[in-house]
Amino acid sequence: MIEGFDLSPVVIIGTGLVGASIGCALRKAKVSVYLEDLLPAHVDLAVRIGAGSSEPVADAEVKLVIVAVPPAALAQVIAAAIVRFPNAVITDVGSVKATVLTELRAAKVELSRYIGSHPMAGSHETGPKTADGELFVNRTWVVCPHDTVKANAVLLVEKLARLCGARVVTMGPVHHDEAVAQVSHLPHLVSALVARHLNDVPESHLKLAGQGLRDVTRIAGSDPNLWRQIIAANGAAVRNELVELHHDLTALISMIDNQDQVLDFLADAQLGTKALPGKHGQIREEFDLLVVEIPDAKGALSRLFAVFDDLAVNIEDILIEHDDQRAVGWVTIFIARGLAGKVRESLVMQGWKLRR
Amino acid sequence: MIEGFDLSPVVIIGTGLVGASIGCALRKAKVSVYLEDLLPAHVDLAVRIGAGSSEPVADAEVKLVIVAVPPAALAQVIAAAIVRFPNAVITDVGSVKATVLTELRAAKVELSRYIGSHPMAGSHETGPKTADGELFVNRTWVVCPHDTVKANAVLLVEKLARLCGARVVTMGPVHHDEAVAQVSHLPHLVSALVARHLNDVPESHLKLAGQGLRDVTRIAGSDPNLWRQIIAANGAAVRNELVELHHDLTALISMIDNQDQVLDFLADAQLGTKALPGKHGQIREEFDLLVVEIPDAKGALSRLFAVFDDLAVNIEDILIEHDDQRAVGWVTIFIARGLAGKVRESLVMQGWKLRR
Repeated sequence: MIEGFDLSPVVIIGTGLVGASIGCALRKAKVSVYLEDLLPAHVDLAVRIGAGSSEPVADAEVKLVIVAVPPAALAQVIAAAIVRFPNAVITDVGSVKATVLTELRAAKVELSRYIGSHPMAGSHETGPKTADGELFVNRTWVVCPHDTVKANAVLLVEKLARLCGARVVTMGPVHHDEAVAQVSHLPHLVSALVARHLNDVPESHLKLAGQGLRDVTRIAGSDPNLWRQIIAANGAAVRNELVELHHDLTALISMIDNQDQVLDFLADAQLGTKALPGKHGQIREEFDLLVVEIPDAKGALSRLFAVFDDLAVNIEDILIEHDDQRAVGWVTIFIARGLAGKVRESLVMQGWKLRR
Repeated sequence: MIEGFDLSPVVIIGTGLVGASIGCALRKAKVSVYLEDLLPAHVDLAVRIGAGSSEPVADAEVKLVIVAVPPAALAQVIAAAIVRFPNAVITDVGSVKATVLTELRAAKVELSRYIGSHPMAGSHETGPKTADGELFVNRTWVVCPHDTVKANAVLLVEKLARLCGARVVTMGPVHHDEAVAQVSHLPHLVSALVARHLNDVPESHLKLAGQGLRDVTRIAGSDPNLWRQIIAANGAAVRNELVELHHDLTALISMIDNQDQVLDFLADAQLGTKALPGKHGQIREEFDLLVVEIPDAKGALSRLFAVFDDLAVNIEDILIEHDDQRAVGWVTIFIARGLAGKVRESLVMQGWKLRR
């Protein structure tokens, strides 16, 4: 049975956010963890936050090696680990899977003990400072078997993911890379295209910007150096997506004067937003919403939420929008259908200003 | 002085969300408001919520006419109003300004009493049901003078905007249309391009979607029929933006294998996100942030915020992210720099789970 496998001892190579967070999660599960990093300061910090030990461990005893280095260094570090740890399963946590496999195959590396994986969690932050053993709880962790990996290697990495609290999804490396190109890398580059264009927009025009533009460009604020490596590692799949987008954009430009076609285009897009799984599988439109003005003052939000508490109305979601000149904001609050009336009444009675 | 002008009586043609909300705001300022709409039910509802009266008023006495009809009907209704109300200033509240002006000029309409404007407020909702006299408070209201308008018409519409609580920005119609193409219409179409593409993405791939994709595609969920009209009315400026995007996308595809160029591209994009005015002019990176797990239960959010209250720590912004399979969510809370340590300590002591 899967539970029969023992992971200890584990070596984690690379103690950035993801590597150190896995260390913390495994230490909580009583697994022995040994940490390595090119930066001794990162190892020291990771040890201090409880991600594992910086002591040496006998290479031949290691059962699992987790490679958590930047995308550009993955193939080389994995290949070295396969040789150095003769009895260990080797996995990595890179955001792209097929390229690394291709590089390893081209280098004639023996791959029966290697299986790539991808925990879908992370942050705009980097480094062990913000590491957290809970980072992967209830997140998806994709495990990507290839045709020459041994079954017990797959099972061991699935056990790793479960020990970290993640949900395992199994998917071939090429499918994985296509999926992340579609749901992550393309949206990232599109956000970047729009954000980059803002450098050429006059400041007086930017004053008319609303929440929509902020939403579209938010992810373009991420670390360019990390994303450069992700895009490079998934070049082929990303290029396919960009070429499809290019095709769709050409079509959109040619139809822009035809209102019927634009309507079809926009209606298809609206349908596409509903393809995304929403909150617990629900769609946002199933909620009532209230827009309340809040002063930018201590305690304002908890006073506001106390009103919902008193009425025993659950807040399903919140969106805060700030006024860029005054110290106030508007909070959009999503609640179950049919409850807006009584909540609105209570809020108004207690002096809150509502916009709807 | 501006305060010397008297707006009463005002006629509002079109009692949708924007028209009825202006009515409510003007009624609060003791202005006499008369409402008209092709749909008698809309007028009745608008009267009931206090947006004005459905009684007739002598055309020659009317001082200000506000045309708040769908984009496609604007030019025709404005032209008719200019003739019908011989002593009134006529404005409209459409999202696009130059096209209407061109149409009116082509129809040889006398334009000294017409001045377009654009209150930058609205909602995904339509119709008078959700109207609100506070809709425009602290929002930007763009007033768009043209070369044949009389000065007192401009002043009267600026007074209208201020009575509704808005901030007036003055901008020529062509500049306005270019600005909204850049900060609103282009981002909308880009969001739609990405959302539409999701229809072709396998469901198993969509499982890997994160918050980034949701942010990029959110505005594509808006009413396709309204947006069809907006895009049609601003066709030329929107086409210019799309052609620039097409050019940038072509360049991106050709550089996708060149990591140095991709890095430059992503760094420029990151810079672009900083061009946008943030919260009260601040940039989000200036805050500390905490990620807390909350059960999807009544009162959870107010219990959480009470902790911040007790510490007298102001919550600057919130982002809620839901687990799509379990009844929990993560709240990202932004607070002033340097306060995360003490808040984290209190939260953990009180049993909250933090992800960082």
